Amino acid sequence: MFDFTVTLDREGKKPIYEQLYSYIAEEIRAKGLKENERMPSKKSLSKHLGISVNTVETAYALLTDEGYLKAKPRSGYYVCRIDAPIGKDVIRYRSKAKKNCDNYRIDFRTNAVDVASFPYSTWARLSKNVMYSTPEYLNTGDVMGDYELRESIAKYLHEFRGVNCSPEQIIVGAGIEYLTMLLAELFENRAVFALENPGYGKVNTILKNNNKRINYIGVDENGLSVDELKKTDSDIVYVTPSHQFPTGAVMPVGRRMELIKWAQERKGRYIIEDDYNGEFNFSVKPIPAMQGLSTDGKVIYLSTFSRVLAPSVRVAYMVLPDKMLDKFMKRFSSYSSTVPRFEQHTLNEFISGGYFSRHLNRVKNIYRKRRDKLIDAIAGKNIKITGERAGLHIVVKTPSAKEIIKTARDRGIRLYDMDTYYFERGKQSNAIIIGYAGVSDSDIEELGDIFKNK
Amino acid sequence: MFDFTVTLDREGKKPIYEQLYSYIAEEIRAKGLKENERMPSKKSLSKHLGISVNTVETAYALLTDEGYLKAKPRSGYYVCRIDAPIGKDVIRYRSKAKKNCDNYRIDFRTNAVDVASFPYSTWARLSKNVMYSTPEYLNTGDVMGDYELRESIAKYLHEFRGVNCSPEQIIVGAGIEYLTMLLAELFENRAVFALENPGYGKVNTILKNNNKRINYIGVDENGLSVDELKKTDSDIVYVTPSHQFPTGAVMPVGRRMELIKWAQERKGRYIIEDDYNGEFNFSVKPIPAMQGLSTDGKVIYLSTFSRVLAPSVRVAYMVLPDKMLDKFMKRFSSYSSTVPRFEQHTLNEFISGGYFSRHLNRVKNIYRKRRDKLIDAIAGKNIKITGERAGLHIVVKTPSAKEIIKTARDRGIRLYDMDTYYFERGKQSNAIIIGYAGVSDSDIEELGDIFKNK
Repeated sequence: MFDFTVTLDREGKKPIYEQLYSYIAEEIRAKGLKENERMPSKKSLSKHLGISVNTVETAYALLTDEGYLKAKPRSGYYVCRIDAPIGKDVIRYRSKAKKNCDNYRIDFRTNAVDVASFPYSTWARLSKNVMYSTPEYLNTGDVMGDYELRESIAKYLHEFRGVNCSPEQIIVGAGIEYLTMLLAELFENRAVFALENPGYGKVNTILKNNNKRINYIGVDENGLSVDELKKTDSDIVYVTPSHQFPTGAVMPVGRRMELIKWAQERKGRYIIEDDYNGEFNFSVKPIPAMQGLSTDGKVIYLSTFSRVLAPSVRVAYMVLPDKMLDKFMKRFSSYSSTVPRFEQHTLNEFISGGYFSRHLNRVKNIYRKRRDKLIDAIAGKNIKITGERAGLHIVVKTPSAKEIIKTARDRGIRLYDMDTYYFERGKQSNAIIIGYAGVSDSDIEELGDIFKNK
Repeated sequence: MFDFTVTLDREGKKPIYEQLYSYIAEEIRAKGLKENERMPSKKSLSKHLGISVNTVETAYALLTDEGYLKAKPRSGYYVCRIDAPIGKDVIRYRSKAKKNCDNYRIDFRTNAVDVASFPYSTWARLSKNVMYSTPEYLNTGDVMGDYELRESIAKYLHEFRGVNCSPEQIIVGAGIEYLTMLLAELFENRAVFALENPGYGKVNTILKNNNKRINYIGVDENGLSVDELKKTDSDIVYVTPSHQFPTGAVMPVGRRMELIKWAQERKGRYIIEDDYNGEFNFSVKPIPAMQGLSTDGKVIYLSTFSRVLAPSVRVAYMVLPDKMLDKFMKRFSSYSSTVPRFEQHTLNEFISGGYFSRHLNRVKNIYRKRRDKLIDAIAGKNIKITGERAGLHIVVKTPSAKEIIKTARDRGIRLYDMDTYYFERGKQSNAIIIGYAGVSDSDIEELGDIFKNK
């Protein structure tokens, strides 16, 4: 008739009757006990749980008072219909208000994706197959990530990004930030880092949290200034050559070679190549990753599946030079991988089954069209657009930048001020960063109106 | 007829014909091009891709040489059946051998689960619902974890573990290790840590990687020795009171209070309570978590869903005292959560739908029976078993510990020597650690034979 699997904590601070009350109330709210179901008699439940009839009676009385149960004379207790929590709150934790949500209707942020193009059915199917195929995936996997996925990534990187590596050099982790945390610990404590300015605030925070010293290096239309870098005592440079974040500059091959030469000049110098937006090159002449240009292990390649698939797919990876692998294993071999193995193998099937490259092509076309639409919508006098060669955001320079951002905000549209990406205060760049991957055509039209009426 | 979405890298290091060759070969191996399908003519493909007929011809010739295509005179090229990669390897990465797997048939490790009892169908169903229900879950979520999941965890912790907290104090992350990394950065650099000895090697590694100073504190049958702790200059103590890892000692309430008193004696002192195996208390008198015993925010509570569900479910969480929340947000608010939102919400549905508590009860019963079977199988003269009050491993003290471990190894059975969990060398504890969650009845019988014949 019933299956009360409640575990009563006989030495807990809560009296037994209260525990029983909470359990039954929760069962009713969760529809584990259905409307009009007859409850066990006080006597039988007391016997079943090994507690006194009085205790059950107290719990039943409370539940009746609060509307969870109704008593029918000479018949017993029956479950009432509960659609919303009623009566006093049985959860004793302090209930604070949820954090305020921003009041923006439309957000031109750089890290969104087109959620409609996510390959739901393929992903769900592969994911289910993986779950049922190999129960052993429930147990702990390789700290670097499961080999099959690393093999698929190595192959993909070779064919699509010109990266030369073996699966053994690849480490999979839950996000660029996590991998950067590991990297920060992998270098000597006194190693000095160089970051692009304007640049990636998260990386700055991670390095600062790890007590690293940081030099900030200017960025021009070709990306990080190697001349400026040379004037500093930096050991490790973190760079986004495919689509500099946030200026959108694409570093030409000449400067890439110059940067590699800088690294080769001294032992202990390394380049961390964050291949940000590397998959979304819209020009006819994509440039291969720096990792493939360097032959002596000076480049650590870093990328993620969050941009092509979705931010909530937490799979990023890095390619370490051979000589750093021992050090990595020495430090981190006892850690556990941060990526669920089910997700690793779903992604592996997705790549090795050819779905990934098809999906990439599909979203590239969508984003290319959206970019063109955006540029058309906002083009005008005193508007200079840069960073459009690669995706998924553009930079708009205009004397009325601040004004446009404010007008947009008043209409519930969020734009991003380039000034906030500089590591020094008081910068006046007159530039707006507009991410377009997560917005609709009508969002773009609304933005166009603001630009036309500025 | 065909849909060649190959992206040719016209400035890459690989010639165009080779890129085309690789693409088609891959399509054939991935069955994107089916057996006996007719390939586009050289002329039409060259026109479609905007490359010369010669280039297509060279690629087709290579593919024919290697058996991917066959040429039929006056008809064209046709796809051949490819079951395994043939001809020369088109993947250019160095192919190293996979790492050696251990030769153990049976592994009594402490971090396995009973894979057969994983709630596959419920998990798959909830997971699919979550994926289709809220496309917005594809985008970035709260760095602390999505609120709904934290609410479910707060409620669960209150009801099952006696933890008092609001969802706002909970931070979700991909594993205990990741959260410990964050914690290590949250305390001042000069903060001195104390670890149980024998203890959790991973935590030791994480703290050392973070350049923390560590004191090692002895453990007796009631867990960490607070007397020893008091003699050190420690600020933060990392402790596993529910089932000390690896000795299996359960810390009685008296000592818990004593430890809390130690923390209260000085500002800056904290207890990190790793509620290891807290869900698996098999005695009738479970002890509530220390977090609930301390009223002044001296305890940071740490736990994971890996033990109850599966190690590959990478969802752990910590409960911070109110006063540490600002510091946390200041340091880490720009980070991204390491747990996929789909997984967070699947887990949330699993807990709030009541499946979690039912699953927990179910596996508790399975593990209790398995524990009893194990104890029966190995009991005998000179065998002293401890740590059996909570799960999922026991400790066996016997003068022939080393001998038994060796005999087991020779038969392909892996046992764990307590000596290896001490932070100093040369310890002679004559104790074996036996995890039983991931083994079968017949594995236990095999082990019993070894004990009987020792």
